[in-house]
Amino acid sequence: MSNPCISSDKVEGTNVYNGNGDKLGSIDNLVIDKRSGQVRYAALEFGGFLGMGTDRYPIPWSMLKYDTNLDGYVVPLTESQLEKAPRYAEDERPEYGEDYGRKVYDYYGVAWL
Amino acid sequence: MSNPCISSDKVEGTNVYNGNGDKLGSIDNLVIDKRSGQVRYAALEFGGFLGMGTDRYPIPWSMLKYDTNLDGYVVPLTESQLEKAPRYAEDERPEYGEDYGRKVYDYYGVAWL
Repeated sequence: MSNPCISSDKVEGTNVYNGNGDKLGSIDNLVIDKRSGQVRYAALEFGGFLGMGTDRYPIPWSMLKYDTNLDGYVVPLTESQLEKAPRYAEDERPEYGEDYGRKVYDYYGVAWL
Repeated sequence: MSNPCISSDKVEGTNVYNGNGDKLGSIDNLVIDKRSGQVRYAALEFGGFLGMGTDRYPIPWSMLKYDTNLDGYVVPLTESQLEKAPRYAEDERPEYGEDYGRKVYDYYGVAWL
């Protein structure tokens, strides 16, 4: 049986692909609820077109499925979903409270924990 | 109110102190349950005496209390506790399964989640 756990430094930098196997970006960091120790989001680093900085897209942890063939996470996001998805600039750190969390989870149709 | 969440890359490298405010080491990485997204342990980097590599001490997440004055985590560990604590070498990666987890939690007297 594979290891049920993974190290944070193995997740950071891992590639993320859409359902067609096209690379979307990579995981920049994880956002963790201090009290419970629950990972709330993975921040997908995506964009950076035309010399602009990359944006960060918070993705609920439960949406990341590891694919051993791709050696990365598959997140079934369409381009139009990403266009309107919650995001913030590379140098921003939003207040990751419950309000923000519910907004992100609602956007992707994932039940709030 | 302070942000209820923290980024994994802010936790990694943060200093860890004992109850007297003596520095024990720093957080190397976090170990996360893949399925649930729950942080099981923080790996405390500690040791490295006389040119030897540092060891990693898995510590249940719930034992880390952030201290704003010290700008680090306080973990009330005594030297004798650390002497016998579960650990592994820098280049080792134990199989972080439930058996290992229960051993670590039992050692520190923390209830298994």
